[in-house]
Amino acid sequence: MKGQINAAGRWIPDTINGKPSIPYKGVGQHKPSGTKAAPPITTCSDYPRDGNKVVSSLQEAFKKAGLRNGMTISTHHHFRNGDKVANRIFDTVSKMGIKNTRWFPSAGFPCQEPIIKHLESGVIHHIEGSINGPLGDYCSRGKMKGTGVLRSHGGRYRSIQDGDVHIDIAVIAAPTADPFGNANGLHGPSACGLLGFALGDSQYADKVIIVTDNLIPFPCIPWQIHGNLVDFVVIMDDIGDPEKIVSGTTRITRSPSRLLIAEYIARFVKDTGIMKDGFSFQAGAGGTALAFVMYLKKFMNDSGVKARFVRGGSTEYLVGLLEEGLTDYILDGQTFDLEGIRSMRDNPNHVDTSPFTSYNYHGKGNFASMLDAVVLGATEIDVQFNANVVTHSDGRLLHGLGGWQDCLFSKNTILAVPSFRDRLPVILDRVTTLCGPGELIDVVVTERGIAINPLRKDLLKAVKKSDLPIRPIEDIKTEVEKICGGPPDPPKIDKRKAVAAIQWVDGTFIDMVHKVL
Amino acid sequence: MKGQINAAGRWIPDTINGKPSIPYKGVGQHKPSGTKAAPPITTCSDYPRDGNKVVSSLQEAFKKAGLRNGMTISTHHHFRNGDKVANRIFDTVSKMGIKNTRWFPSAGFPCQEPIIKHLESGVIHHIEGSINGPLGDYCSRGKMKGTGVLRSHGGRYRSIQDGDVHIDIAVIAAPTADPFGNANGLHGPSACGLLGFALGDSQYADKVIIVTDNLIPFPCIPWQIHGNLVDFVVIMDDIGDPEKIVSGTTRITRSPSRLLIAEYIARFVKDTGIMKDGFSFQAGAGGTALAFVMYLKKFMNDSGVKARFVRGGSTEYLVGLLEEGLTDYILDGQTFDLEGIRSMRDNPNHVDTSPFTSYNYHGKGNFASMLDAVVLGATEIDVQFNANVVTHSDGRLLHGLGGWQDCLFSKNTILAVPSFRDRLPVILDRVTTLCGPGELIDVVVTERGIAINPLRKDLLKAVKKSDLPIRPIEDIKTEVEKICGGPPDPPKIDKRKAVAAIQWVDGTFIDMVHKVL
Repeated sequence: MKGQINAAGRWIPDTINGKPSIPYKGVGQHKPSGTKAAPPITTCSDYPRDGNKVVSSLQEAFKKAGLRNGMTISTHHHFRNGDKVANRIFDTVSKMGIKNTRWFPSAGFPCQEPIIKHLESGVIHHIEGSINGPLGDYCSRGKMKGTGVLRSHGGRYRSIQDGDVHIDIAVIAAPTADPFGNANGLHGPSACGLLGFALGDSQYADKVIIVTDNLIPFPCIPWQIHGNLVDFVVIMDDIGDPEKIVSGTTRITRSPSRLLIAEYIARFVKDTGIMKDGFSFQAGAGGTALAFVMYLKKFMNDSGVKARFVRGGSTEYLVGLLEEGLTDYILDGQTFDLEGIRSMRDNPNHVDTSPFTSYNYHGKGNFASMLDAVVLGATEIDVQFNANVVTHSDGRLLHGLGGWQDCLFSKNTILAVPSFRDRLPVILDRVTTLCGPGELIDVVVTERGIAINPLRKDLLKAVKKSDLPIRPIEDIKTEVEKICGGPPDPPKIDKRKAVAAIQWVDGTFIDMVHKVL
Repeated sequence: MKGQINAAGRWIPDTINGKPSIPYKGVGQHKPSGTKAAPPITTCSDYPRDGNKVVSSLQEAFKKAGLRNGMTISTHHHFRNGDKVANRIFDTVSKMGIKNTRWFPSAGFPCQEPIIKHLESGVIHHIEGSINGPLGDYCSRGKMKGTGVLRSHGGRYRSIQDGDVHIDIAVIAAPTADPFGNANGLHGPSACGLLGFALGDSQYADKVIIVTDNLIPFPCIPWQIHGNLVDFVVIMDDIGDPEKIVSGTTRITRSPSRLLIAEYIARFVKDTGIMKDGFSFQAGAGGTALAFVMYLKKFMNDSGVKARFVRGGSTEYLVGLLEEGLTDYILDGQTFDLEGIRSMRDNPNHVDTSPFTSYNYHGKGNFASMLDAVVLGATEIDVQFNANVVTHSDGRLLHGLGGWQDCLFSKNTILAVPSFRDRLPVILDRVTTLCGPGELIDVVVTERGIAINPLRKDLLKAVKKSDLPIRPIEDIKTEVEKICGGPPDPPKIDKRKAVAAIQWVDGTFIDMVHKVL
């Protein structure tokens, strides 16, 4: 296969899944041309005048939607590991004798392991989307017929909006819906908070099917998904497992080294002056991120500082900030626990967002770049601050991109990582898979010290008087290698066999994932 | 000029403003083809990373937006007769030496009479939009260079969505906005409630400019207009006259004959069984419509009946229904008084809608056809129940279409009209201008009796036991002609000179308005 080296020094094939690929050109260097995707014009005269779009089954909906071989079917991952719809979709597709579909989830989860049989049988040709756990492992072993394509949340929206990915049929699992197709994630037994990951699907797919286990009379308020974009509504007994959709509660890490990392980050945000009245930050639902929020909250209280907005995934900890008046707003992309759902449902200052508002790089700006600070993780980081978030050091693809790439555009991007995992150093000379360029990564915080990207002279200056352990990244790397007995072994992979492509936020390709041997 | 007779028997020229026209084919008969409009793909790398899109003046915004001769500039009419932005826009366009623009307002109001000088000077070539009062009169006299095109609220959205009207620059006056361009109508000195009429403009225009007199820090919540679609933000001292944007209070008619019409409608809705638990209705802010709501409310209270939803424009009377538990929701397209704004701001069950959700005929259904009953007005009605809502009997174009055509799709469409105005009968053999086909108009209610469309055998049966004065429409016409001394004189118009076109909801043309002599 022909290819070329991109601006980040990674080899990219000329075509991916038969379509010409554009190699990564550098941050902000690729200028798109052309126009957005344009769905077919529909007419109300083809839809029931009483607004009732309920059909008897998923199969009937697929039939009416004109499902054919080779089509692209999309789903969202707001139900996370509690999803019961994706497997049913492809069981139905299989039963209908349809082959060679492309599955376009916003993310795949371990509960969807049964999808593998449909990959084996040819019902699904390949998956484009974050493929975590068993599906990622399957892909890593080179078993998928096509190449996996991983996009960030914003990149997925962009690819739909720009027409790179044409969705024939979107299936949107909805905790509450009305017969017209208005839907939200706030109410019902499978409540997940919001449905932002399905927004682009609803806007651009040719046909949109809502699947719900909680049908209510029109109007379903709020309509996070507009019924005006929906073709069919299907009622199912049970679309998700509530306990796996959200946690009852989210938990702060108890690991002393991770608590130390969290404290370092909070102190860094305070000492550098990022924490000031009206500031903003984003932290996820991982144990370290939650601990960071806890420390920062203390500092905010001590200094009388209030945030203008914070971004989730929301948890009870972010909800606490809102309810205690430490932030004006939560701008939330997904709710991770029951408190998050309650708050989004009842508090107008807990606002649902989408990859369109927050992350789409082909918009007229987005929210991500306005954030004062974001705290993210990584599987590997190199001494130029380039980072990997999808593969392990053994080369296996086990994590999705999530909103990680999109968030790198924040004013201060902080990666929180332990200096080693399973006795394997995290800081390397070269990351296995390049997911984000070092120029966007400002700070790496480990339990052994904090490395500031030399490009950020302002931050280096800002910490001059701080007693935080600021160290060159190479120093931390050297120390950790001594502890671990040297750098990790290179992954055993077949460099001639790419199994998945990592797309950058602008639609160019930044790296490939290779078959593990 | 060449043309043809459409399915409603009206002559339509082959081209309107140089573009081929499609004559009206009958309700639901025109099937659209092709795809929706596709705006250019943008990139965040061309927008300020800190999200601050504020520029120093409207002129600077126009310059940066690339304003050129012949472009289309759109505005909304949520400020009604209190708007101070449209005149400023075209004064600026004029100062910049730009000519031959097309003004595409959602409606024009008397306060925009100064626009006439820009029509005279060639700054504006013609107006497409509802043109009420002085602008309509100007158009009626054949003075506009191009042909006016009147579209309903839904038809306007459809025309943008379908790409019939390409907006080069949308200017959205916003009572509150942030520097990113998120905007709403709920807060600030010029609060108007919502900004739904500008939704399509924000989604499909090449360039979007927000003009506000109330800039707040990001984020402006709720974002009725998404900043992600906005190019520039301009701050003005004063964008509207609050007293003319909304009434302090709206008033029920005191006219005995209009009160009688209102009571007849309410009794009709009750006696026919339309009023039942979970029903829905729409009534506007006119004095008769408000009186109808008052009577119906009494009947609902007496019978213990509750509506599922009501549609506005909202007023204190609809808010009363919501707050007293007589309806679950208000689905609101525009707020007409201060109580409407307060309720929409504070009550999550008072929901803002848009022409996209409510009226767009080229959607996958819309809200209008789900309504059990709608009460509308008309300037003229003929004995086949066809109706006119834009011209007077003298032929002058003095009213816009509003959501009138869109609402005709309700399950029971009721026109409330006095049997004569200024001693001119309202029921005729043939309406001056055809705006809505009789097959969609179910009931005409006058102070002299109620005429049911013979097509609605079910309604004729439903009133069998009612003591309401149900009469054939011809009977009412004959009686009124006796009182008034015969039918009105035909309008003095030049049938060879069309000055404006009336578009039907599907983009076909249903009639033309002609030059008055």
